[in-house]
Amino acid sequence: MSKLKNDTFLRALLRQPTEYTPVWMMRQAGRYLPEYNQTRSRAKDFLSLCKNPDLATEATLQPLDRFPLDAAILFSDILTIPDAMGLGLYFSTGEGPKFERPLHNERGIRDLVVPDPNVHLRYVMDAVSQIRKALNNEVPLIGFSGSPFTLACYMVKGGSSTDFATIKTMLYQRPDLLHHILDVNARAVTAYLNAQIEAGAQAVMIFDTWGGVLSHAAYHEFSLAYLKQIVDGLKREHDGAKIPSIVYTKGGGLWLESIAAIGCNAVGLDWTIDIGEARHRVGDKVALQGNLDPAVLFSNPDTIRAEVGKVLHSYGWGNGHVFNLGHGISQFTLPENAAAMVAAVHELSRQYHCH
Amino acid sequence: MSKLKNDTFLRALLRQPTEYTPVWMMRQAGRYLPEYNQTRSRAKDFLSLCKNPDLATEATLQPLDRFPLDAAILFSDILTIPDAMGLGLYFSTGEGPKFERPLHNERGIRDLVVPDPNVHLRYVMDAVSQIRKALNNEVPLIGFSGSPFTLACYMVKGGSSTDFATIKTMLYQRPDLLHHILDVNARAVTAYLNAQIEAGAQAVMIFDTWGGVLSHAAYHEFSLAYLKQIVDGLKREHDGAKIPSIVYTKGGGLWLESIAAIGCNAVGLDWTIDIGEARHRVGDKVALQGNLDPAVLFSNPDTIRAEVGKVLHSYGWGNGHVFNLGHGISQFTLPENAAAMVAAVHELSRQYHCH
Repeated sequence: MSKLKNDTFLRALLRQPTEYTPVWMMRQAGRYLPEYNQTRSRAKDFLSLCKNPDLATEATLQPLDRFPLDAAILFSDILTIPDAMGLGLYFSTGEGPKFERPLHNERGIRDLVVPDPNVHLRYVMDAVSQIRKALNNEVPLIGFSGSPFTLACYMVKGGSSTDFATIKTMLYQRPDLLHHILDVNARAVTAYLNAQIEAGAQAVMIFDTWGGVLSHAAYHEFSLAYLKQIVDGLKREHDGAKIPSIVYTKGGGLWLESIAAIGCNAVGLDWTIDIGEARHRVGDKVALQGNLDPAVLFSNPDTIRAEVGKVLHSYGWGNGHVFNLGHGISQFTLPENAAAMVAAVHELSRQYHCH
Repeated sequence: MSKLKNDTFLRALLRQPTEYTPVWMMRQAGRYLPEYNQTRSRAKDFLSLCKNPDLATEATLQPLDRFPLDAAILFSDILTIPDAMGLGLYFSTGEGPKFERPLHNERGIRDLVVPDPNVHLRYVMDAVSQIRKALNNEVPLIGFSGSPFTLACYMVKGGSSTDFATIKTMLYQRPDLLHHILDVNARAVTAYLNAQIEAGAQAVMIFDTWGGVLSHAAYHEFSLAYLKQIVDGLKREHDGAKIPSIVYTKGGGLWLESIAAIGCNAVGLDWTIDIGEARHRVGDKVALQGNLDPAVLFSNPDTIRAEVGKVLHSYGWGNGHVFNLGHGISQFTLPENAAAMVAAVHELSRQYHCH
């Protein structure tokens, strides 16, 4: 293994000392960057961009060329796994992700098979290897996947939902069927993330975008149990280096202690929780990643600096904090406001660390 | 004051002993009821229905004719106040509420005036009086309003939002302007609810539908502070009876202790929090209202009964619980499933109360 020039992000995830608080942004490669839109225009559609390792590498590196970020994240989509299962992912303009063949009957559910990531998701592994080469050990690369429950939401509905009626009807009417989907998904995500690790991902993150729509009991049974199954099966080391894991449930603030107990290294927080309170609740169990409201970036550099300062101050002195937004950066963000955030984190966080 | 035949709901809100757990449903008069759709078809549009006291009375009573509910709630909309301020509320099919004249500039904001509820919202007071007469003291009538922050979301955007970019941009760019809107709204809501109480409302509820999209700090500064301002100004008694207040912030589970501390009698819970944990956190401060996931009603009577049992069991023995859904009942709910829920609450809750 070659030595990373900047491993601040990995050390923070492992709650080791760092000189400052590392920072990256969920969805940091995306539509708010003009250069991304240029790259995007060279692919037929969003999915073709994800499936082309050259273009995925280009997109992954763009935010790092602009901002001194402490980590890169694989450019891909959270729904690659159900696509590899044969559901036919596509993106219709303005309507988000859709599946050509959603799980509309019991037979389709029983027929689900865990895809071999090195065959059916080869393009992802190729992108990971290529990005690692291109990064030249400047900063670590994060691999990721959607969570079993979040994937299932799209798989049974065939697209986005506002009321989650389809998945919840299944949850309360046929929990056995949903458990079957979730178990297949959990095994698929585990294999997928381990393949990303073998291909070069130096940390992994699981995005549970929709777990927060569940009741307390249903979250634990239908989302968290499968997140734990994945974390239990993840490679903890590769090529002589520890591979930290991050679990993020949007809207999961109420369940923080349970999430922190599943064995992941870090918990991602959305912006609704006070990060100091979150730290108090999880103690030394995990590192925390977050949690500026992405809407703060709609303001101006002075306000951004002040709000960054509040998050850092709330977390307080010591290790174990990775700065991030509480959710993906909006496409309507000015890149200079993202730059102001990154600069403020690096500058203002030094007072909370040993030098 | 004539004596209420069933005051179980009011006693539960005041944490007094009851024989069983009272139950009502947010949005209990609505599109899942065929008779509501029949009434609705007799009005030009949804707002005309709200503005016609005869039809509003009819809609309010319909769920009570079907189910043995322990409270009625005024049939109206949460956005009547900004409409009375002159913003021009209308409903476009499939797109939810809109305003003809949203607050697009500073002058419009500075010109906002608190409407006189007995003049500009006379139709609401007429509906309240008429419903009280029609109820004939069978069960209490709940009056309600949207929260200052929730009203502001629509007032600045002109309609619904998924990312709340408009209101949050104002919040971070021009907090002074937003505070001005919120202060006017809080004074307007206070006057409106007090007028409803004088017209006959026997309890009041404030719906903070969108407070949950804020950060911890922003929620306290831009939503909760104004909820407290309202609660401070509410009439606590009318016509010899106590008038309990309920505050509901969807997605507010993380801030439960703060909400319980503003002086309201009860806190409404969405379905994401375990109600037993909520009770443990608030102690004897307030009653709790909630919190079955409305999606449970997509299942079947057996599952509904089991899930109702879990909520009752989690709350446990004793007073201070009003059963409700964690959010409004879906238009796709079968009325017989709502009936199953109400029956299950009445039957299963007796074991948790003295007889």
